Amino acid sequence: MNDRSRKRSQMMERRSQVLQPRQESAKGRLSAGFVEALKAVVGSPYVSTAAVVREQHGHDESMHRCQPPDAVVWPQNVEQVSRLAALCYGQGVPIIPFGTGTGLEGGVCAVQGGVCINLTRMDRILELNPEDFSVVVEPGVTRKALNTHLRDSGLWFPVDPGADASLCGMAATGASGTNSVRYGTMRDNVLNLEVVLPSGQRLHTAGPGRRFRKSAAGYNLTGLFVGSEGTLGLITAATLRLHPVPEATVAATCAFPTVQAAVDSTVHILQAAVPVARIEFLDEVMMDACNRHSKLNCCVAPTLFLEFHGSEQALAEQVQRTEEIIRHNGGSHFSWAKEAEERSRLWAARHNAWYASLALRPGCKGYSTDVCVPISRLPEILVQTKEDLEAWRLTGSASPLRARGAGWDGARATALSSGPPGTIVGHVGDGNFHCILLVDPEDPEELLRVQAFAEQLGR
Amino acid sequence: MNDRSRKRSQMMERRSQVLQPRQESAKGRLSAGFVEALKAVVGSPYVSTAAVVREQHGHDESMHRCQPPDAVVWPQNVEQVSRLAALCYGQGVPIIPFGTGTGLEGGVCAVQGGVCINLTRMDRILELNPEDFSVVVEPGVTRKALNTHLRDSGLWFPVDPGADASLCGMAATGASGTNSVRYGTMRDNVLNLEVVLPSGQRLHTAGPGRRFRKSAAGYNLTGLFVGSEGTLGLITAATLRLHPVPEATVAATCAFPTVQAAVDSTVHILQAAVPVARIEFLDEVMMDACNRHSKLNCCVAPTLFLEFHGSEQALAEQVQRTEEIIRHNGGSHFSWAKEAEERSRLWAARHNAWYASLALRPGCKGYSTDVCVPISRLPEILVQTKEDLEAWRLTGSASPLRARGAGWDGARATALSSGPPGTIVGHVGDGNFHCILLVDPEDPEELLRVQAFAEQLGR
Repeated sequence: MNDRSRKRSQMMERRSQVLQPRQESAKGRLSAGFVEALKAVVGSPYVSTAAVVREQHGHDESMHRCQPPDAVVWPQNVEQVSRLAALCYGQGVPIIPFGTGTGLEGGVCAVQGGVCINLTRMDRILELNPEDFSVVVEPGVTRKALNTHLRDSGLWFPVDPGADASLCGMAATGASGTNSVRYGTMRDNVLNLEVVLPSGQRLHTAGPGRRFRKSAAGYNLTGLFVGSEGTLGLITAATLRLHPVPEATVAATCAFPTVQAAVDSTVHILQAAVPVARIEFLDEVMMDACNRHSKLNCCVAPTLFLEFHGSEQALAEQVQRTEEIIRHNGGSHFSWAKEAEERSRLWAARHNAWYASLALRPGCKGYSTDVCVPISRLPEILVQTKEDLEAWRLTGSASPLRARGAGWDGARATALSSGPPGTIVGHVGDGNFHCILLVDPEDPEELLRVQAFAEQLGR
Repeated sequence: MNDRSRKRSQMMERRSQVLQPRQESAKGRLSAGFVEALKAVVGSPYVSTAAVVREQHGHDESMHRCQPPDAVVWPQNVEQVSRLAALCYGQGVPIIPFGTGTGLEGGVCAVQGGVCINLTRMDRILELNPEDFSVVVEPGVTRKALNTHLRDSGLWFPVDPGADASLCGMAATGASGTNSVRYGTMRDNVLNLEVVLPSGQRLHTAGPGRRFRKSAAGYNLTGLFVGSEGTLGLITAATLRLHPVPEATVAATCAFPTVQAAVDSTVHILQAAVPVARIEFLDEVMMDACNRHSKLNCCVAPTLFLEFHGSEQALAEQVQRTEEIIRHNGGSHFSWAKEAEERSRLWAARHNAWYASLALRPGCKGYSTDVCVPISRLPEILVQTKEDLEAWRLTGSASPLRARGAGWDGARATALSSGPPGTIVGHVGDGNFHCILLVDPEDPEELLRVQAFAEQLGR
């Protein structure tokens, strides 16, 4: 896995399945006639039953076991998607939509076999309407490709889950990201979706017009499809809300004596209506890992990563107010990054938190929990989670003393044995945090314990 | 109707019906036994079948014909709502949720008879969590009551449809308002709903916790219930997102030579990322009506009403940028209002646009269309709408020459006969506008023509 594809896997995107009514009957191989029927829809070169291709499409970047589909098809237009859906549905064959495969929750795993519909060949930007702040994209268009296309328009699409995910996949999974505190998640930035239902029927969730900012007519089907994980239909086009590119940007890191102080600062910044664009929390274990992995030189302490967008004048005021609030809460070791390069380095470190965590225990796999709590309860829950991690470590089963493979690093083992096998990062403005647990995939007992821990955390 | 209750009727709230599977069988009177069963749930004083009460609950403030329910009940808690729903559902009796009755789209009309469930006795603010920027309210709590309660918290709830509607009613109807360009509509500000399904089952749309800012688990049922107009269930509590009270506020009006210039200015202001809090368009007919009705002294021209929220320093910059953009587009006659009193007067005039329009043709009823178009097409569609209004006037049937009743004003008749019988106001930041048509409710031909006009506009 190269560094570029590695970066993808931090995202929250998941791919899931349209399970069909007669799904059980489809388990196992597809008939030769059915594969021929798929070829008749998309053309022979765009259907594959090769083992290596099916394997590639049977997993995302998470630790979920590879469960390959029975066939992979690459439709080139919505008519083909519609015919494929109708064909599979008619035969009771599961349909698995596939975008960039950068998810972390195993959504693409073909748990019942079936046909994986890889939508990356539909990659046109269909319509850009700068005056309406909207764009219509096909499912193969990724976040970065769109923002490159928008470069000279003065607009951008801010939702940023880390990976260069497909935008329709981000819609399907209800992706969010570090910008959500200011710009919202996919829920707030999808205006309309063209979807193909399992029956093959095409539907525009917000009506036939693609560009409406707001509509009170009928049920909010757009909101229903966003985050439906591919279980309701295939997204074949998305109308997205664009935002003006900020005139200037400043990023910062700041260390705190306690988790409580970092969270209190967050609440006070939001209460003061400082329009912070990003505000992310990293615990001291995570900061230690980031310092090592991304060659940062930050304090090993509970830390906030911040970013502000606005005019030069507005930024100066935002920065001043934030500093006042943070100092009042005992924060220190400010480090402001104004130049694009410095900012990129900082946010790359944040985006690489996943890999920094994995590097703490080479050979392990990461298991990321995704918990959302009221921000007022965040300090308490973070402290409790850290205690649970510690208690777990003391029982010994998760201790990294059992070195395995060439990747194991004795020095790290010592570092880790004196700390919990998990790191914490959080979109703290939303009360959403991830606990990244470092798991030995060969140890069934440890896997069970991780699942139990994640379930407990979920509760 | 006093002035206070009049003001209510500008809102977009509508009440609608949970139509039951066996609804046909319920048409007509309820059995005495059924009414007794209702009384057994809520207590005798809280059930009425009196004609006057039923009449009061059979209409909102629109021109839709009164269609009274067969009975009105006032539950006092969610358990009673649940039992009422199960009772009605079991007997195939339609259920009509009722809040403040301030809608304009006839949602409370009991088209199939049935039981009106008036939720105003459930009016507690259940939980205020300032650190989480959230509050939980029962369905009887209105927008103004909530903001009064929040007065010392530094927080407020910004969605403002004009009327002092109930917040759960606003959720049910997906209400928006003049603030939506900055703070979003109800869709963006409802975090969770407690609903009672027709069967009586209770459900939290975003899970049992009431305060989550964001959740990617399961389908977005909150979004599905917001705007569902009471057709999916009864909302018995809403968790709402609160915002910090702005440090300072400035409002303004500005006249433009053309509709195009006003809309272009809006697009440029949004593109420049000026965080405008309100931006409303009024056409010259509407401005004339507002000048007369609200004793303003504005230019009779296409006009923008604007408002900015922020720190003193941020406001100064926003105002300066906006003036530059507006002057560049030919706007003039700025009038800035900084003091609360001046601002209130300006926005009261905007909120009273409905009554100002009605006053153009005493004795008439207002018929408000609600059309949402891409902002880039707004000038074209507004110009077309004005031409249609003019063409219609020239055919004569809508001419106000047939004076009726004591309210008729000869001077106004002349004014009106030289202009179209309709005014235009718009939440221009969203591409959403209302054409208020002034209809003689006694003239069936005119009613038909208005409906045809509204349908054409919808298309």
